[in-house]
Amino acid sequence: MRHAEVTYRLTSVDASDIDALASDLLLEQTFETPREVVSKYVELTDRAGEVHDIRPSENGAVDITLHLPDDDIQNVAQLVNRVFGNVSIHPNIRLIDFVPSRGLAQRFEGPKFGAEGIREAFGYPRRPLTCTALKPVGLSTDQLAELCRTFAQSGIDIIKDDHYLADQPTAPFEERITRCAEVAADVSARQGRPIWYVPSISGSPDEVRRRCEAAGDAGLKAVMLAPMTTGLPVLHSVRRETDLAILTHPSFSPVASIAPKVLWSTLFRMLGADAVIFVNAGGRFDYSVEECRTVAATMMAPIFDLKASLPVPAGGIALDEVPRTIQRYGNDSALLVGGSLLKQEDLGEATRRFVEAVAENALLAE
Amino acid sequence: MRHAEVTYRLTSVDASDIDALASDLLLEQTFETPREVVSKYVELTDRAGEVHDIRPSENGAVDITLHLPDDDIQNVAQLVNRVFGNVSIHPNIRLIDFVPSRGLAQRFEGPKFGAEGIREAFGYPRRPLTCTALKPVGLSTDQLAELCRTFAQSGIDIIKDDHYLADQPTAPFEERITRCAEVAADVSARQGRPIWYVPSISGSPDEVRRRCEAAGDAGLKAVMLAPMTTGLPVLHSVRRETDLAILTHPSFSPVASIAPKVLWSTLFRMLGADAVIFVNAGGRFDYSVEECRTVAATMMAPIFDLKASLPVPAGGIALDEVPRTIQRYGNDSALLVGGSLLKQEDLGEATRRFVEAVAENALLAE
Repeated sequence: MRHAEVTYRLTSVDASDIDALASDLLLEQTFETPREVVSKYVELTDRAGEVHDIRPSENGAVDITLHLPDDDIQNVAQLVNRVFGNVSIHPNIRLIDFVPSRGLAQRFEGPKFGAEGIREAFGYPRRPLTCTALKPVGLSTDQLAELCRTFAQSGIDIIKDDHYLADQPTAPFEERITRCAEVAADVSARQGRPIWYVPSISGSPDEVRRRCEAAGDAGLKAVMLAPMTTGLPVLHSVRRETDLAILTHPSFSPVASIAPKVLWSTLFRMLGADAVIFVNAGGRFDYSVEECRTVAATMMAPIFDLKASLPVPAGGIALDEVPRTIQRYGNDSALLVGGSLLKQEDLGEATRRFVEAVAENALLAE
Repeated sequence: MRHAEVTYRLTSVDASDIDALASDLLLEQTFETPREVVSKYVELTDRAGEVHDIRPSENGAVDITLHLPDDDIQNVAQLVNRVFGNVSIHPNIRLIDFVPSRGLAQRFEGPKFGAEGIREAFGYPRRPLTCTALKPVGLSTDQLAELCRTFAQSGIDIIKDDHYLADQPTAPFEERITRCAEVAADVSARQGRPIWYVPSISGSPDEVRRRCEAAGDAGLKAVMLAPMTTGLPVLHSVRRETDLAILTHPSFSPVASIAPKVLWSTLFRMLGADAVIFVNAGGRFDYSVEECRTVAATMMAPIFDLKASLPVPAGGIALDEVPRTIQRYGNDSALLVGGSLLKQEDLGEATRRFVEAVAENALLAE
């Protein structure tokens, strides 16, 4: 296939006009120029794309699949412009599927390490990785470093910053990451196992670059980015410019306009996300088990030779949900449990129980 | 007011739980940590915000207004994280209003030139400005420059690139902007009136920076950015780093998740958009007259001492819609008519008719 395949779901649509509407959407996403003008000026064969499929969906909605030319896409801005540019301006149209062509996927390269690389870094444990968060914002560097120590001593693999942590006076960026990196390295050396502290990186593109450099200088292996807040192109820049693994956070994800599996599982992955935080069913966010399974499966499914991203379910996983969550996503995942630990009386004890629960409930088949 | 005010519209919501739900949303957008943990660790007074209002809306929806702390917001990524961070992950929640505090608005500065500065550059004509687009993508530099000449000779004020134009081999960026800038300058000198050629700038943050420099070097006064494709922080960087006026394009705007007046009229304006392209009612996009009027009014309405952005209605304005469009938005606007001109047999003649129609139908009261 030399075209990108995109599927839009249209609600509140007049089905009698659907063929014309599909052609209009195709034109919008290719030339955005009246048909008669396009045919007058330019050779259509290469760039016109085609309406591939039109089919009824749930509750009177209609799904339209287009094949869109993607040879001319050179950067992330052009990518999203082609996939969901002007069509996004229709409030009744949602992007529900996107499959890049081989050429397009290879141009953006995908994860540098991916699920496999992260699991390798942790010695291929026969269980999901354990992940937690330093929070809430407002704590001092000392308090965050102390939390980091407790989590590390209690067996957590990956300790990430809360996404609200930036460069606040309460815990300035450089001071915080230096201290937490030292704590993680110290416990790691004493316990003889890898422990990743993963700082939250936000800011302008230049600030992101400087903070990633600082993270590398502090000996860290990975950073957390919320690509929709920094801009998707910044995700790809970090992928290209650094040797840091990238954990993505879903903040500012317009899921009413773009299905999570497209945004988190395909776009974030294409642009270099090694591990992808997403919301688990049954937590604070009202997602079905089926949708969450699809999000995780899509980031692991083959896209030509792109590496898979590691699924990181989150969003309010209670401790007694650990067995079910592992059943749902398998060992090739990282379980992110933050608030459910922090609200326990004895944080160290609660964390050890979480770590043990993950080990005990790991799937045997690997 | 020292808090930002945001309003979310919730659909498919259980109204019996609405107070608890509102508190949960507030917590999500401030600490994202269980309530008991927050009160244990940090002083709440300053950062907690409050649920300001809960009221029923159309079709069983509920509108929830929160006051969110914004003192700690230092950059664009933090801004959108605070205003619509994790809450965006709920598919049934739409951001429908956002009013920054004075401090927040001033921190981001808003337009450098704004509607006033652009109208000044054109000598305060007592009519809307006229704007058109070079398209479709696929044309050669020669063809685009020829179009540019025809538009300029026929009286257009602002000639912008189509948003699909980037750095394609058919019309490489530097070659295209050099040629079109020369054409615009040539006709401008001969006609003795300002003519702006406005190139489309896309790409990674570094590419945007380089292309803005090239635009400045070519003597251009303005550039067009699609901030959702480049990342919103890039809009603010261009505002801060250059002396170019900024015309924003709405591509990749998730309007099902964020109301256009919030995204285009408030956020784009806060971050520096001098002129804002939006879709006009009655064109290719199904927007009501009321919604479009609100979008335009919001970018002109007072936000502390931020300059107003210039409304640029677009999206399929037919030539015979010009009088009605001027009635709708007034003289402080720029009418963007692209395809409706290009599809006419005689482009120069059609363009002159558009320019005359704008002059003849301008509002007398200024």
